[in-house]
Amino acid sequence: MSAQDRHESPDSAPPRPVGGVSRRRFLGGAGTATAATAGGFVLGAGGVLAATATTASGEDTSPAALLTRGEAANDLLSYPYYGEHQGGIATPPQNHLVFTSFDVRATSAVELQLVLAKWSAAMAEMTAGRPVGKVEPTREHGIPVDTGEVFDTGPQGLTLTLGFGPSLFDGRFGLEKFKPLNFDDLPAMAGESLNPAYTGGDLCIQACANDPQVAYHAVRNLARMARTQVSTKWTVLGFGRASAGPAQKTPRNLLGFKDGTRNVSTPDDFAQHVWTGKEAGQPWMEGGTYLVARKIHMLIETWDEDTIGDQQSIFGRTKQEGAPLSGKLEHDVPNFHATEGNDPLIPADAHMSLVAHENNGGTKVLRRSYNFTDGLDSVGRLDAGLMFLCFQKDPEQFVKLQRKLGLSDRLNEYIRHVGSAVFAVPAGLPEAGNYYGKEFFR
Amino acid sequence: MSAQDRHESPDSAPPRPVGGVSRRRFLGGAGTATAATAGGFVLGAGGVLAATATTASGEDTSPAALLTRGEAANDLLSYPYYGEHQGGIATPPQNHLVFTSFDVRATSAVELQLVLAKWSAAMAEMTAGRPVGKVEPTREHGIPVDTGEVFDTGPQGLTLTLGFGPSLFDGRFGLEKFKPLNFDDLPAMAGESLNPAYTGGDLCIQACANDPQVAYHAVRNLARMARTQVSTKWTVLGFGRASAGPAQKTPRNLLGFKDGTRNVSTPDDFAQHVWTGKEAGQPWMEGGTYLVARKIHMLIETWDEDTIGDQQSIFGRTKQEGAPLSGKLEHDVPNFHATEGNDPLIPADAHMSLVAHENNGGTKVLRRSYNFTDGLDSVGRLDAGLMFLCFQKDPEQFVKLQRKLGLSDRLNEYIRHVGSAVFAVPAGLPEAGNYYGKEFFR
Repeated sequence: MSAQDRHESPDSAPPRPVGGVSRRRFLGGAGTATAATAGGFVLGAGGVLAATATTASGEDTSPAALLTRGEAANDLLSYPYYGEHQGGIATPPQNHLVFTSFDVRATSAVELQLVLAKWSAAMAEMTAGRPVGKVEPTREHGIPVDTGEVFDTGPQGLTLTLGFGPSLFDGRFGLEKFKPLNFDDLPAMAGESLNPAYTGGDLCIQACANDPQVAYHAVRNLARMARTQVSTKWTVLGFGRASAGPAQKTPRNLLGFKDGTRNVSTPDDFAQHVWTGKEAGQPWMEGGTYLVARKIHMLIETWDEDTIGDQQSIFGRTKQEGAPLSGKLEHDVPNFHATEGNDPLIPADAHMSLVAHENNGGTKVLRRSYNFTDGLDSVGRLDAGLMFLCFQKDPEQFVKLQRKLGLSDRLNEYIRHVGSAVFAVPAGLPEAGNYYGKEFFR
Repeated sequence: MSAQDRHESPDSAPPRPVGGVSRRRFLGGAGTATAATAGGFVLGAGGVLAATATTASGEDTSPAALLTRGEAANDLLSYPYYGEHQGGIATPPQNHLVFTSFDVRATSAVELQLVLAKWSAAMAEMTAGRPVGKVEPTREHGIPVDTGEVFDTGPQGLTLTLGFGPSLFDGRFGLEKFKPLNFDDLPAMAGESLNPAYTGGDLCIQACANDPQVAYHAVRNLARMARTQVSTKWTVLGFGRASAGPAQKTPRNLLGFKDGTRNVSTPDDFAQHVWTGKEAGQPWMEGGTYLVARKIHMLIETWDEDTIGDQQSIFGRTKQEGAPLSGKLEHDVPNFHATEGNDPLIPADAHMSLVAHENNGGTKVLRRSYNFTDGLDSVGRLDAGLMFLCFQKDPEQFVKLQRKLGLSDRLNEYIRHVGSAVFAVPAGLPEAGNYYGKEFFR
């Protein structure tokens, strides 16, 4: 798969994964004793891949063999970089996230232009599983261009999504006239305890991949190649996706509940709720979207002391199955009018009730969140939560829902919004030779 | 696979993965349009699994299909909990780590005994992919026993490895006579900048799994069930394994070099270098081992400015292939006597030269390290490095190698040892009904 290949899928449809990168992961001979060269590994009689199971066709279907093949598939999985929309939005959420917000330290438009051009080209290379620069081991006195830690992992489904913060259009670079309509920092809302260390940014990169090292490598190398023009402002590593995409099993957040059951998924939904059109007043945003990032700290120990019944009424769903309290199965359509006696089965102030499109004039956002943990806090409690990421055609969609949640959500007793940012995510690049923001510098 | 099944592999052989957990991951019908119930996901014509490739036998071998099957295999992969040795030592390194050190706050031996008994039973459940307590949704007023975030992930190859720090035997619990011979905090060594916040601990849990949420869940639930007796002291999340096990491709550390090429792998090596025998003077350590944990911060930006030639001479290996500088291929046996002119091809002070068993009277340790990142440091640099974990039959093996490295390793310019601990890892439990430390409380 060449980085020049166009993304040819129909408008607004989720992107197709493609295979074909030539470097194949070394497969350890599943089910077979393998003797490596001297100094290498020897798989003994009680070796790790001994648990074999073969089908009538002779295919090895043991968990170990399937796992090995699954890992090899991960190596090969790549998403197209060029296309109508950027990757990492309609892409089914990969398993890992590195989200990083940057401040631009450069003082001239031409320096910013150079960063965006370099980044756009490097993003194409890394998305295809290639290093950001040639490896020339004979050039012993050269500084390595690529940092090397993913030389042999393959693309791992990497997507890189670039966003511009409102502050980028503040006049430092003469970009005022390119600012989308109604694009500003999010308004202050109830229930926030924002930490300036996790707030805002001129640029952001959302790196998602099925190997966390691949996502980390991408951000590290982008930061490195722009180190005199751009500084990292805040970063969050997501260690488990917490929003389902099309055809994915619904994952769970760290409160133990399924998250993303009713997520935006159809092309119609994407067209109606996610992809920005002419309303931004900027051609570069047609086919783009807005990313809202909220770092949400969870008071895990407190939550863990709550009863199962209370937890369920806070979410409006059962914990084990994830069914709405008005139904039996996860994907049962919630009935907000169903009652038992005088009480609604789904409380009106349940999290699900407050955000349901039925109760918000049809408003939806595409959630693409990840769980995170920063280890322990200063008093030894688990420092963890949800890196809430959502995409919408207008930031007002998020603001409308969050205003309601901030005022009424019973979940607020257990969560704190500690970080926040909004970014305008430009449309995809049509083909090689283009770069994000090119329109700004004519 | 029941948790009661014994680990029947030959002495010291790596454990076999086993399948058979009944909950199967929902598979999204790879290559097939799937319509979920209303409110669920609909996979449209341009759906994510459209890139199909079928073999003559009709098997779908597209990357997406293999990936789905690989993920399903991961769900099923489990390692036996009961056996001669604890899991997570000879087990081929899983992709993710949560390492946590604990202080015991309890003041009586019986409280400690209760923690160890509860933990041992819960570790068996979680290793088999089961929650730590029954889910009884009808008991609405009960506090959930399991926190729930991995209700449907399967075991994901989870292993949990328990260790006792030297401080556990200091007399608070009357355990002085159970202290292994020569088991004390590691001596101060050259090149350390230890932070007390990442040092020591009475107990440790090394949780490793192919899904980070599964490893996190395990530590969270162990901490939770002992919250009045035990407090978390420090924790490190490893986001990419950085040491190879048998039949695994060699991974890379964040300096971009392959790590673990010459790792301990054969049963003979395990018997000779890893499993403790009678020398500890404690029956409970026969079949156990010692875990040394070192949190190593890497000065990544500084390293990234070094030339490829210098980087290679520091490690003693080529960066791309990972071959010793005396050879061509990764698994070529290094020749420390080979010269070019008067200079050895592998410098005598290269990292590999200093730690090679050929140059240390045959001393080897089993490395089982993970890369980590804590995001950004206070001045915006990447805060990342290596959570170095190694196992050996006597802590002196590590001390011997590290003394040399601390004095001479040219890598010291780019790394800082900031955390350190040593733990006695008891032998495995033979069967259900036993618990770690049972011998202490007779």
